[in-house]
Amino acid sequence: MLTDGRLVRGDRTRTAVLDAAVTLATEYGLAGLSLAQLVETLGVSKSGLFAHWRSKEERQLATIEHARAQFAAQVVAPALAAPKGVRRVWALHEHKIAYVIDVELPGGCFFTNAQFEYDARPGPVHDRLAAVLAEWLALTERLTAEAVTAGELRADTEIHQLAFELNAIVTGLVHHSRLIPTDDVAALGRAAVLHRLRALCTDPSLLPEE
Amino acid sequence: MLTDGRLVRGDRTRTAVLDAAVTLATEYGLAGLSLAQLVETLGVSKSGLFAHWRSKEERQLATIEHARAQFAAQVVAPALAAPKGVRRVWALHEHKIAYVIDVELPGGCFFTNAQFEYDARPGPVHDRLAAVLAEWLALTERLTAEAVTAGELRADTEIHQLAFELNAIVTGLVHHSRLIPTDDVAALGRAAVLHRLRALCTDPSLLPEE
Repeated sequence: MLTDGRLVRGDRTRTAVLDAAVTLATEYGLAGLSLAQLVETLGVSKSGLFAHWRSKEERQLATIEHARAQFAAQVVAPALAAPKGVRRVWALHEHKIAYVIDVELPGGCFFTNAQFEYDARPGPVHDRLAAVLAEWLALTERLTAEAVTAGELRADTEIHQLAFELNAIVTGLVHHSRLIPTDDVAALGRAAVLHRLRALCTDPSLLPEE
Repeated sequence: MLTDGRLVRGDRTRTAVLDAAVTLATEYGLAGLSLAQLVETLGVSKSGLFAHWRSKEERQLATIEHARAQFAAQVVAPALAAPKGVRRVWALHEHKIAYVIDVELPGGCFFTNAQFEYDARPGPVHDRLAAVLAEWLALTERLTAEAVTAGELRADTEIHQLAFELNAIVTGLVHHSRLIPTDDVAALGRAAVLHRLRALCTDPSLLPEE
């Protein structure tokens, strides 16, 4: 008991619990994220977990923030290292495609899975997941607008439409890759994003071939 | 008891149970499709339900077949009434977009929701859901190939790539529409499908404007 309490109070163990929660959620759902599963996976006590999160909803919201931080570190931060303009828009999607295909999550992408799971369940979990999607679309729109300002994407680019389509391609990629596993689905996703960006790009040599 | 038994044995009630099961699954998940919920929604007895399906998995598989039949009647059949060629490819997606946006299912589309839910859970439910997606992609590819043969889509159309992208657009539409409800998301989806088809079409006047 005391050992478990000390263990779970430590930041390192808090991270381990949340890592496991993100992984389990892509497999069994965020609603199915039971204390019993976490206890079994990690070998900590229920009372140790309760020291951090008093309710299932608190635990779900903490899991969302943890997944968001992972995604920011593994997708957004490296993409922002690319030069501003169309190359940064591409880098964002190149990293996202690699993430949803290569990452060790059974369901491919925590957010796509959780967002579908909560799409018809009102409440704080739904609202936070919707806000994360809105934030992603806003980021895509901002980087795309920068590429238009830089003259690298055509002035008549429909930024809102493009952000919807690029997000749909990656959402479709998560969907397809887990159910039709024989396909080289990363190549399908890369080609779709590059096709859309190259058609709008004033200098396609800035982008890889499809 | 006897009344319940008679009621549920009737085909009309079997249909009512499966209608409710499809709707509940888009809200709470196919795994969360409990006898208790069906009993509460429909006011039938557990023993009455057990007369039809002996296990949860049998009930889930029956729900999938029921949703597939609904989709075939509401999306595939009307699309096949359009003239063979690019207009039939468009009709298929026009009906599918209307279905996922307008249908009375809380989660928008039974299959997209259930496929994400089961993407990382091996077993007969996963396999059947994957087979339904493969069937949909094969139908899109067949209608697209007919449009190429008819000379209405360019001879160099990458049919497999196009089927992936058209499916991704509608998957993204379900995702987006339930989480960013202020958007006219049907218009975003229609424009994305039409843009892709018109770019490949030898006679764009066969298709509506974007």
